[in-house]
Amino acid sequence: MDVTRSLARYVVDATYESLPAEVIHEAKRSLLNWMGVAIGGCRHEAVEIALATVAEFSGPPRASVLGRTERLDILHAALINGMSSHVFDFDDTHLATVIHPSGPVAPGLLAIAETRPVSGKDLLLAFVLGVEVECRIGRAVYPSHYDQGWHITATAGVFGAAAAAGKLLRLTEQQMVHALGIAATQAAGLREMFGTHCKPFHPGRAAQNGLLSALLAARGFNSSTQGIEGRRGFANVMAAEHNLAEITDGLGDRFEILFNTYKPFACGIVIHPAIDGCIQLRNEYGLTADQIERIDLRVNPLVLELTGKRAPQVGLEGKFSVYHSVAVAIIDGAAGEAQYSDSRVADPAVVALRERVTATADPGMPKDACYVAITLADGRVLERYVPHAVGSLERPMTDDELDAKFRALVAPILPANQTEELIRLCRSLEQLPDSAALVEKGVPRTEEGRT
Amino acid sequence: MDVTRSLARYVVDATYESLPAEVIHEAKRSLLNWMGVAIGGCRHEAVEIALATVAEFSGPPRASVLGRTERLDILHAALINGMSSHVFDFDDTHLATVIHPSGPVAPGLLAIAETRPVSGKDLLLAFVLGVEVECRIGRAVYPSHYDQGWHITATAGVFGAAAAAGKLLRLTEQQMVHALGIAATQAAGLREMFGTHCKPFHPGRAAQNGLLSALLAARGFNSSTQGIEGRRGFANVMAAEHNLAEITDGLGDRFEILFNTYKPFACGIVIHPAIDGCIQLRNEYGLTADQIERIDLRVNPLVLELTGKRAPQVGLEGKFSVYHSVAVAIIDGAAGEAQYSDSRVADPAVVALRERVTATADPGMPKDACYVAITLADGRVLERYVPHAVGSLERPMTDDELDAKFRALVAPILPANQTEELIRLCRSLEQLPDSAALVEKGVPRTEEGRT
Repeated sequence: MDVTRSLARYVVDATYESLPAEVIHEAKRSLLNWMGVAIGGCRHEAVEIALATVAEFSGPPRASVLGRTERLDILHAALINGMSSHVFDFDDTHLATVIHPSGPVAPGLLAIAETRPVSGKDLLLAFVLGVEVECRIGRAVYPSHYDQGWHITATAGVFGAAAAAGKLLRLTEQQMVHALGIAATQAAGLREMFGTHCKPFHPGRAAQNGLLSALLAARGFNSSTQGIEGRRGFANVMAAEHNLAEITDGLGDRFEILFNTYKPFACGIVIHPAIDGCIQLRNEYGLTADQIERIDLRVNPLVLELTGKRAPQVGLEGKFSVYHSVAVAIIDGAAGEAQYSDSRVADPAVVALRERVTATADPGMPKDACYVAITLADGRVLERYVPHAVGSLERPMTDDELDAKFRALVAPILPANQTEELIRLCRSLEQLPDSAALVEKGVPRTEEGRT
Repeated sequence: MDVTRSLARYVVDATYESLPAEVIHEAKRSLLNWMGVAIGGCRHEAVEIALATVAEFSGPPRASVLGRTERLDILHAALINGMSSHVFDFDDTHLATVIHPSGPVAPGLLAIAETRPVSGKDLLLAFVLGVEVECRIGRAVYPSHYDQGWHITATAGVFGAAAAAGKLLRLTEQQMVHALGIAATQAAGLREMFGTHCKPFHPGRAAQNGLLSALLAARGFNSSTQGIEGRRGFANVMAAEHNLAEITDGLGDRFEILFNTYKPFACGIVIHPAIDGCIQLRNEYGLTADQIERIDLRVNPLVLELTGKRAPQVGLEGKFSVYHSVAVAIIDGAAGEAQYSDSRVADPAVVALRERVTATADPGMPKDACYVAITLADGRVLERYVPHAVGSLERPMTDDELDAKFRALVAPILPANQTEELIRLCRSLEQLPDSAALVEKGVPRTEEGRT
């Protein structure tokens, strides 16, 4: 079976007109969410260090770093923007493969759009195809590949980045085959690195390496024509078990982007049902912390395994504490990046409430569900069973909720009018004659203008 | 066992004075051989395409491309020089792991030497340590890792590149641990790509990515501290079987560079005994092609499996033909790059002689050996058993032979006086106050001078 070639042919031949309306809608939601996390994350320590390091080696500064005034060559811009968007672990998730699809794919496209006119439709098409390629390859090797220790967002993502960039660069089928091969031989990223600066580095490098793959292929650089399915190709070498039919079956009929989801809360997904339940009760009953005697949760055992930290000391640890998360959910009615700052974790009111939270592991509780019981000082007990947390495929975030998430992320970086402009541009991207406008609104205006 | 940290500590603490004289001598031989193949390969198609692609994105041109007048930022220079040195498959080989050790390690060191003063001694020390790191990691995972389909020169090489660059950058132990971790999470390169432009791309990227790892670590970028041995680290994820003791046992006592070998002939190593035997008989008896009725070889079965091409049409195919190789060995007394050109493969005299060559597979024949019988027109039969081909560990190339190989490779690119100067500089590298001189002699002089 000629997997790599079939995939290449599909990407080369696909047209904007062949995309169903809901696919375009979801692509715009993905891009908006992605820009939000990329802009929001642009001041993270990992980004600062990487940017300081590569700035010294940057070529002609033709591409923007989202949220910042620095400009870099397009390869390095792809690296940094890909990193920013993953530093909060708040980006999108293709649940069937745990791939965060936008991080590797979007950066190269925006960078190219700064060097030549790319219509909003072309950008959307290339983005949809990049997501399609990486998620299909991910499905073919998941879970064996992930279980083996590969950070699948990077290892599958590099193919998506190559395919998407290659589409904008108008590669021929043969060049696209090579671009996928050059991507295959750069697939890398170990789960061992989770919790370190290297984790966001992975999708950044996938974006950069995939873009380079397409640029090389465009000039005639060649590779094996069976980068994915060859005897010593990606699938055989990097996944003990795999099913290549996942890559080619129903190409053009099924769209992976329709299975994309967005996190409403800036923490591990296992805590989301508990946060959701608490926010629901808080809002319905107008609860404040001082009314609450105790909060009792019944959760899937994974919740305590992964997020059982009772007394987090710094913001990052808060993300691994169901207790802290539930406390800020009640007090702030939210669990965004702001709720996981060092100061929020140390806030006496938050600490006092989290000490009144208990969580019991219940093997019968589905991973996506939670039971919340809030006992009030006046003796009342408010109960809520959450069968599917907001942000799940069954209960996706609404467009309004995504806009609100975007605003919260971007607020510390860009002025409000620019933020609203970005939302408007993303929401009407298919009408944009030149998508460079999107990037332009994604960076702070400087008095001296752009370099 | 703290493998990554032990290795990092050794690299950080090692001094030039601790290197035995034979290690320094072998390091100089390795570097000379490496510069020869890098300069000789600098006009290869794969290099031309890669260079044209990345030149557009290069930062400040502070580093040289060996054999050429273009200059690039140090990361891209490392990529291109690493590629050049592998395009002929004529670089060095650490036989125990089939790693080509110099390709990933040397380019970053030379690039750094162009940006700050690096003494010959410091360069040699960093080079020896880089080779040590990659070959020890290679030993730990070989053969399982290679059999699985990984191009070990790249996957182990990236660690060597990081360690060597990190040594020159004077990383602390903790930074070196991170550099090795950042390298681990970039380890990539599939054997599926053999025979394509991607093959030389692998050591080039290993050189570039390893250098980047060290630069990032120097600025405080962190990684898992168990990049090699962690549960989801390099060894567990990328090698079904491995023995981590190979990495740490006898550090500082045993030196891997002493197991490095150099190819006297520009083709697959399995044909070397046959070529060697033919050249020996040719030189001893002053043979010419017209005296020869037939040449009969008894070879290890692998020779016919890998290099059994009877009628090669182009130069590259000649490298996979024991028949062509033996014919040029007799006619030219050599089997360098010049003997594997398209024209040499098509030369009527060469074709006529190769048609009088037979090769018989003999499972009892060791891989490193060959039996040659040349039947002359006058009825004499000249026989030679070669137990170990020249270039093997048992019969290493002499310094003079290495010099001759270097001259043949560099002759098409640089003037003879510069070539001799390079040999002299390599041979006395430990006396060089600033190793940038080495690079300076490795590029053609231009009238307008250097940018």
